[in-house]
Amino acid sequence: MKLSIIILAAGLGKRMHSDIPKVLHQLAEKPLIRHVVDTALALKPDNIHIVYGHKGEQVREALADTNINWVEQAQQLGTGHAVAQAMPDIADDTMVLVLCGDVPLINLATLQALCSQANNLGVLTVLLDNPQGYGRIVRNAQGQVERIVEEKDASTSIKQINEVNAGIFIVSATHLRRWLASLNNDNAQGEYYLTDIITLAVQENVPIHTTTSDSPYQVMGVNDRLQLASLERYYQTQQVKQLILAGVTVYDPARLDIRGTVQAGRDVSIDINVILEGEIKLGNRVKIGPHTVIRNANIGDDVEILSHCVIENVVIGAACRIGPFARLRPDTVLAAQVHIGNFVEIKKSTVAQGSKINHLSYIGDSEVGSGVNIGAGTITCNYDGTNKHKTIIEDRAFIGSDTQLVAPVTVGAGATIAAGSTITRDTPPDALTVSRTPQKTIVGWQRPIKKKK
Amino acid sequence: MKLSIIILAAGLGKRMHSDIPKVLHQLAEKPLIRHVVDTALALKPDNIHIVYGHKGEQVREALADTNINWVEQAQQLGTGHAVAQAMPDIADDTMVLVLCGDVPLINLATLQALCSQANNLGVLTVLLDNPQGYGRIVRNAQGQVERIVEEKDASTSIKQINEVNAGIFIVSATHLRRWLASLNNDNAQGEYYLTDIITLAVQENVPIHTTTSDSPYQVMGVNDRLQLASLERYYQTQQVKQLILAGVTVYDPARLDIRGTVQAGRDVSIDINVILEGEIKLGNRVKIGPHTVIRNANIGDDVEILSHCVIENVVIGAACRIGPFARLRPDTVLAAQVHIGNFVEIKKSTVAQGSKINHLSYIGDSEVGSGVNIGAGTITCNYDGTNKHKTIIEDRAFIGSDTQLVAPVTVGAGATIAAGSTITRDTPPDALTVSRTPQKTIVGWQRPIKKKK
Amino acid sequence: MKLSIIILAAGLGKRMHSDIPKVLHQLAEKPLIRHVVDTALALKPDNIHIVYGHKGEQVREALADTNINWVEQAQQLGTGHAVAQAMPDIADDTMVLVLCGDVPLINLATLQALCSQANNLGVLTVLLDNPQGYGRIVRNAQGQVERIVEEKDASTSIKQINEVNAGIFIVSATHLRRWLASLNNDNAQGEYYLTDIITLAVQENVPIHTTTSDSPYQVMGVNDRLQLASLERYYQTQQVKQLILAGVTVYDPARLDIRGTVQAGRDVSIDINVILEGEIKLGNRVKIGPHTVIRNANIGDDVEILSHCVIENVVIGAACRIGPFARLRPDTVLAAQVHIGNFVEIKKSTVAQGSKINHLSYIGDSEVGSGVNIGAGTITCNYDGTNKHKTIIEDRAFIGSDTQLVAPVTVGAGATIAAGSTITRDTPPDALTVSRTPQKTIVGWQRPIKKKK
Repeated sequence: MKLSIIILAAGLGKRMHSDIPKVLHQLAEKPLIRHVVDTALALKPDNIHIVYGHKGEQVREALADTNINWVEQAQQLGTGHAVAQAMPDIADDTMVLVLCGDVPLINLATLQALCSQANNLGVLTVLLDNPQGYGRIVRNAQGQVERIVEEKDASTSIKQINEVNAGIFIVSATHLRRWLASLNNDNAQGEYYLTDIITLAVQENVPIHTTTSDSPYQVMGVNDRLQLASLERYYQTQQVKQLILAGVTVYDPARLDIRGTVQAGRDVSIDINVILEGEIKLGNRVKIGPHTVIRNANIGDDVEILSHCVIENVVIGAACRIGPFARLRPDTVLAAQVHIGNFVEIKKSTVAQGSKINHLSYIGDSEVGSGVNIGAGTITCNYDGTNKHKTIIEDRAFIGSDTQLVAPVTVGAGATIAAGSTITRDTPPDALTVSRTPQKTIVGWQRPIKKKK
Repeated sequence: MKLSIIILAAGLGKRMHSDIPKVLHQLAEKPLIRHVVDTALALKPDNIHIVYGHKGEQVREALADTNINWVEQAQQLGTGHAVAQAMPDIADDTMVLVLCGDVPLINLATLQALCSQANNLGVLTVLLDNPQGYGRIVRNAQGQVERIVEEKDASTSIKQINEVNAGIFIVSATHLRRWLASLNNDNAQGEYYLTDIITLAVQENVPIHTTTSDSPYQVMGVNDRLQLASLERYYQTQQVKQLILAGVTVYDPARLDIRGTVQAGRDVSIDINVILEGEIKLGNRVKIGPHTVIRNANIGDDVEILSHCVIENVVIGAACRIGPFARLRPDTVLAAQVHIGNFVEIKKSTVAQGSKINHLSYIGDSEVGSGVNIGAGTITCNYDGTNKHKTIIEDRAFIGSDTQLVAPVTVGAGATIAAGSTITRDTPPDALTVSRTPQKTIVGWQRPIKKKK
Repeated sequence: MKLSIIILAAGLGKRMHSDIPKVLHQLAEKPLIRHVVDTALALKPDNIHIVYGHKGEQVREALADTNINWVEQAQQLGTGHAVAQAMPDIADDTMVLVLCGDVPLINLATLQALCSQANNLGVLTVLLDNPQGYGRIVRNAQGQVERIVEEKDASTSIKQINEVNAGIFIVSATHLRRWLASLNNDNAQGEYYLTDIITLAVQENVPIHTTTSDSPYQVMGVNDRLQLASLERYYQTQQVKQLILAGVTVYDPARLDIRGTVQAGRDVSIDINVILEGEIKLGNRVKIGPHTVIRNANIGDDVEILSHCVIENVVIGAACRIGPFARLRPDTVLAAQVHIGNFVEIKKSTVAQGSKINHLSYIGDSEVGSGVNIGAGTITCNYDGTNKHKTIIEDRAFIGSDTQLVAPVTVGAGATIAAGSTITRDTPPDALTVSRTPQKTIVGWQRPIKKKK
């Protein structure tokens, strides 16, 4: 049998109070529906169909890199109606798995269990301490599923049932096609409920398989931002726990955010309130200080990143020491043993081995050689108001404090630039270059007097 | 009937280990008693009386802007005695509501319920899982309130009762006056307990109404700083939850602090560890990055505030991008599309549309025009050691890096200032102004030699 | 009787996935075994023996400052075997207390209770909700301890027992010596278990005393980093709670980390996400802002430290105001009423009363007098590429913005330095010193034109 996956993504999400389609709200900086699509892809289905509605163009755009069959649901007539829109594109010899675009943490293993055991109809259920808001699984005396009753249509006694419908089904295309055609919208909401296929299956004596999830978070949908925040926290807890068990020391598991993937070496430690985004690779013995934010970085062995750093799209060589208060901007590549200190911004630059930029500097569009010392307050004037230009500082140069390097310019190897210089032309190697006015003193000068107001 | 409110604020707060009167300790940066007074005012009473004692002058000063009748309780002889001090100022045709200055989170709706239902005597009670330390409500077989027994005077069996006195009463002035006169101090503490009016009411067969609060936090008093911290956290949880349900994405509800009021547009998002203080207005689609602190700000649509910013008393126009590591100080007004970058401080300045101050600069007492580009390391020398002066940078000026603008000074529209200049006089528009010494090289110069130690 | 303490520290810690010996992993920035040794020392024993194995040299090095008898366990043959290695160094007239190097939070009072009551054999036990992984205490019908069964050897019924062995014993040396000789390794792990001495004591009718701990955290061992994180959080909770009850206002108890000792005056307040490391002394009314990290500091009365500061090894005088975004590095001493502002780094310098360094400066190896005003962008050029030199700024000097002070250099008392100066020679007192090139304007100059790409 083939496998088709239909993802329902047409929901309005009114309680989100948002102009963004619900399924595009983000969990760990990734749209909800992208979580679902990634899990769906891992099942290696023959095809994936997304039923979109409200602001669907934005959803399509957000998933433009995927190979998905887009199906519009022009009117919001219920989940059964939504699934029906996709059926013309699905062949009979197919099992159809229906997922929800706003249930982001559904687990691959759970879906594999559901898919492997159902031939006709399989329903994912979950036991909830507080089942409010979910469709209840009503079973007969023999324990077989009889129907699913939505909260809005549920009697008081049915509301007591704590096994609920996770909204995730697998069903053969032939059954599904037939049942969808039989649905009616004779209920409080006037909608065609997908869940009513259960009743039809019961009527036809089609066996219904159930798989019960081990975690309510797996099947929790996002209807408001409080639920979104709950899922975000649960997801973070799980991500961080995995990292810790793999051998990373995390000072406070509740205060580490992972929004992407982290690959960590041995004996890495991460202090409080760190955020790791995108693709992060951490070498052995990397230490990350508190209050630091890192996005997309490849960080070598024995690197120490101190507190309050902001680092994005960089490569950091072994044994570098960064921060505190350092900002490394995209396309920065640091070789080994580089020191970047406080209030220093590096942008689109390479810095070779052992060089130091310790204080209050801006280095942009530069190539810095090895063994260079860049004094406090050094600024590469890389922008003339119109174009960006390059600064080259060769090996072993010493740049005095408060120097401006007006690019394009090259400081020769071993050159020394005196403090306070404005360097506008290339400087020769191994010599001292200076642009400085002699100091003079005006004796008898009077300080300004306090103005009357 | 009139409504008078008496707020008891004479307590010493010994367990606070503090030189500050207990009721002036702060919850969400607002004194405890100010929370109570604000709620009292919302009941629109005819008058409010605060009974003060310990360091009362400080309390009076902290509430100097309110119209309150201050009543001194010279000796700490108990709550009954405290209320008695205020009675001479209260007329007979009055219902008297007694609140506690150290119970900050009492809810308006709860008080309205209590006030609306009681004609003679109404008592606010609360059911606690752990009632230790609170006066227990003793009811007779018919469920009518019989008396309130303080922890210190309670038998073991009475200690089992988990309905407790919230310390909040409403009582008619005539009853109250009579009962206060009958109180005695024959108890373990030798104090006149206000709660004993219950017994007197029972003796006189005066009907006692009770209202039971739905939250223990509402009636929790502050006796030590651990309780203060609990209330702070509860309050924050509630504030944040409201904001989230109204449509703000909060990355971690446990790591957002709101110390004031926040008005947010649609699709605002707030990353971890943000503090919002005072009056905050956030436009649509505002993004606030992690580790950022904002106090009193009006922030326009589509503004992005990156991580590690400190912002106070500012107006930020639409689509500005601020930070990371930006400090906006009071009286800063940014027009639309302004960019403020890292390690930049702006103080008491206006910046017009589309201007950029991206790196390592100090702009104070300035008017910056539109389309201006201010290079890295620019400093407005606004202070001559005695007076502050103004810097004016007109539209489309380009300020080269590491420039000092010695105020008072004006840079003309479209002017260019060369990097490293010290500008002491006004510069003409559309021209290049420079103050620079030619660069020269000393060949054969020797670097310093390592000193022997 | 003498008291000898044996600390077992030979465990491999495989689940830590680490190259660091397990007992050297840190809790609150202090190695696990150091916590145990500190508690052991507080019992004033006659001697302490540490049985080491895996990477023992590192452990010995980490505790090089202590007076410990180091005992190698060359092969990992179980806890009984480990203890046996230490016995040759222990006299008969001794009670032997056995502690675990990976159980860091064992409490002094608990150990005192255990030691005071046992003459022959005392066992510390704890009741756990989830006893999984711990050796269960099996008692006979009379409630006397019969044996301890390890998880790996436990039957299903024994696994139900929730009183567990904390791994902490006190036993007379004569009994212990005899019992250790009788141990066998006939169990699933093939190890000599210390716990088997219980069975031997039962066989010999030696009375077994038990002391039961009031907290599972006290006896929790560290086997993986999730347990390490749990203990870290528990420890922090306890540390912070103590500080709060002593009279410090902590904005969020879950977001303060104390990694050392804090001594605080009255009415100190600490905002969210602060880290206090090493030895910290806080005067009265000190306020510490959010996102600030302080290590080893002596901070005077009424000091206000604003947000995002990093402070290490400093002395800060009364009523100073620091930050936000200030970095105070080691050997900085600030007198009273000094102001250090944003993006300012101070290193190994003294600053006398009332001086201000408010913006974007680097002051290193300096002596700054009183009443000095240091303008934005001031840099002490303390490093010539080879040696460090000293800058002296005398009282009441005014340093204009963007000044470089090329050390060694002295600015005289009351001197004024004009903005943008490079000061290479000492400047006289009370005079104006300047190094500046006159400003000139090039009219008709054309801005660069956009390059074609």
